Amino acid sequence: MQRLAHRLERLGTETAFRVAQAAAAWSAKGNRVYPFHLGDINIPTAPHIVEAMNAAIADGRTGYCPGPGIPLLREALADDLGSRRGIDLSPDNVVVMTGGKPVIGKFLQAVMDPGQEVLYPNPGYPIYESQIDYLGGRAVPYRYLPTDDGFAIDLDQVRASITPNTVAIVYNDLQNPISAESTAAEREAIAQLAIEHDLWVLSDEAYFEARYEGVSQSIASLPGMAARTVILYTFSKKFAMTGSRLGCAVAPVELAHAFGTLNTNDESCTTHYVQWAGVEALRGTQEPVRQMLDVLRERRDAACDAVNAIPGMHVAVPHSTFYLFPDVTDTMARMGLTDVAEFATAALQHTGVSFCTREHFGRRQPGEERQYIRLAYSGIDLPDITEGLGRLREWIEAA
Amino acid sequence: MQRLAHRLERLGTETAFRVAQAAAAWSAKGNRVYPFHLGDINIPTAPHIVEAMNAAIADGRTGYCPGPGIPLLREALADDLGSRRGIDLSPDNVVVMTGGKPVIGKFLQAVMDPGQEVLYPNPGYPIYESQIDYLGGRAVPYRYLPTDDGFAIDLDQVRASITPNTVAIVYNDLQNPISAESTAAEREAIAQLAIEHDLWVLSDEAYFEARYEGVSQSIASLPGMAARTVILYTFSKKFAMTGSRLGCAVAPVELAHAFGTLNTNDESCTTHYVQWAGVEALRGTQEPVRQMLDVLRERRDAACDAVNAIPGMHVAVPHSTFYLFPDVTDTMARMGLTDVAEFATAALQHTGVSFCTREHFGRRQPGEERQYIRLAYSGIDLPDITEGLGRLREWIEAA
Repeated sequence: MQRLAHRLERLGTETAFRVAQAAAAWSAKGNRVYPFHLGDINIPTAPHIVEAMNAAIADGRTGYCPGPGIPLLREALADDLGSRRGIDLSPDNVVVMTGGKPVIGKFLQAVMDPGQEVLYPNPGYPIYESQIDYLGGRAVPYRYLPTDDGFAIDLDQVRASITPNTVAIVYNDLQNPISAESTAAEREAIAQLAIEHDLWVLSDEAYFEARYEGVSQSIASLPGMAARTVILYTFSKKFAMTGSRLGCAVAPVELAHAFGTLNTNDESCTTHYVQWAGVEALRGTQEPVRQMLDVLRERRDAACDAVNAIPGMHVAVPHSTFYLFPDVTDTMARMGLTDVAEFATAALQHTGVSFCTREHFGRRQPGEERQYIRLAYSGIDLPDITEGLGRLREWIEAA
Repeated sequence: MQRLAHRLERLGTETAFRVAQAAAAWSAKGNRVYPFHLGDINIPTAPHIVEAMNAAIADGRTGYCPGPGIPLLREALADDLGSRRGIDLSPDNVVVMTGGKPVIGKFLQAVMDPGQEVLYPNPGYPIYESQIDYLGGRAVPYRYLPTDDGFAIDLDQVRASITPNTVAIVYNDLQNPISAESTAAEREAIAQLAIEHDLWVLSDEAYFEARYEGVSQSIASLPGMAARTVILYTFSKKFAMTGSRLGCAVAPVELAHAFGTLNTNDESCTTHYVQWAGVEALRGTQEPVRQMLDVLRERRDAACDAVNAIPGMHVAVPHSTFYLFPDVTDTMARMGLTDVAEFATAALQHTGVSFCTREHFGRRQPGEERQYIRLAYSGIDLPDITEGLGRLREWIEAA
């Protein structure tokens, strides 16, 4: 029989779904499960957005549309994203995609030749590493160091990792899984390095508006950065539209043009009527967005309190994202465990609390000694957060 | 400034959109346009399908779903496609995608290494050629020869083009743009060559059920073929769902698994609630499908009659697809034209009739002497077909 192409040997994936499978299997045996593993949102898409989609269908918007997106949505995105970031955007800078994720692969296809190096956050969203490898590049990780109020990029490591062969850096301010947020100085240092070494920047801004206090800043708004930055934007998190698959790339025009042609080659266009829903999401009432943030803020506060009450566990209160990334090294030592996957399995079986670990967010780096887990609070209601993490605490206290 | 990746230099596209732009510009000047260039369908998606989508949204199906598709849709596709083709399919053979088009790129990624050769129909759907080039393969065209009742694959050319470096053949029975349909003998000959030379086959079955007489056959149903064939299936044409972006690959399990992982890397999943609409499309009433075929059959008959009444133009009546591919060589000679693009522009400006030409369907091959245009009747109503092609006839008769 015929063999498959060699490139598939380099193809990684998201392994977090195995956690979901283990949780489902445990639940199927009649056990209570507290789903802290979900990066999804258990809040429905707002009715006015769904109504706009149906109005578009009734208006006959069921045929093909342009590969880069319908003009009205590109315009709405240019207006909304530009004004929130303080940058000047034209619809020509905006290419609609089937979610934020496609921006990662298309960005790398457009800027990275095989053999070239791309810096990426690790722990980080696993698709960066997977797509760099798959497309024949060299995935060069950079790490975060714990600080009093969260995590900071190890800028010395970033600097030391740049070679003449480096073409791009993936920058995910408001980070999944660790909820790190750059200070202005850190963001400027990354921008400075990009300019100095003539690097492209993929600014993953999926959580730009999943923010509970303060104001988000985009690296694209810093001097000299718009021309070298591609912003990954998604409707998924802000509007509870993960299953709608709607997002966009914001890019310099030449690159945007390449993305549009890639769309034409890969999937023709993003679902037509969903794009009309996107226009309403951006231009209609923002009250459901505020309400969702209120719900998530309450969950965050409850989850942080509960985590910090667990012996040996500590987490700083993040101002954005849906994730807590507590250091569980001391907790694991107390339980006599050294493998974080084993800790997760034991936690599920003793308490029903299901979560991802550091292992789901990129290859472990040499010298990593501390152990971390990721608790997501976007897919679990407040009472279950308190109850589940309470059970986790009782189990650990009893050890 | 940073340069872009070299692979973009190999990226082709669909050029047919330029025809749409020219038609829109001509219309904007106040001229009547008859849109025979559209591969789209001017018939709405059936209401029961839209209702199923809304029911899914109301049931909370707005979050992420599995990369290879929701189990119920994979099951419905395995049942429906398997029974219509007389092959045994399991849901594990089915991977849902954002339309039929993504199957082309993902198939090539999975079976073709850079430098390897893939045979493809030319004239044919332009994305085959574009994606083979883009992914670093060598796109080897095969042609069709005119017959009394349409076109036949030049099997001698196919045979002569196979080398030890050939890994796959793209086979588009019920062909866009030329509406060719294989005889049983031709289909078997292609299968025999694939088996003999151990080739993968991409069987593009986008028009499998866009059929007015007779019964479609899949090459996957021939002995020994299921294990080496990937079927491209789409909801676009059968259910008037082009803008919904819903389709699937049917593949041997190992390949299906690779497609699922590619989905996870590229776009997470296909729009969740649209997949529920797909279940209803397959399992609900098929009356709208029959009604649409009745409408299209009437259009086909009127268009064929009108084309064959034009001096120098001839077309056989195809039993499937939405396309006529008349030989216009003699008509052009009568008009004193040698460039088919010039003929199209003159036709638009003198009659308002807008159409694609052979040039939009792959690189012209050495030795091609006849000239062809493509008239699509899926996006234009019956009275406009008669009126538009009548104007085309009058203009040509007057020359």
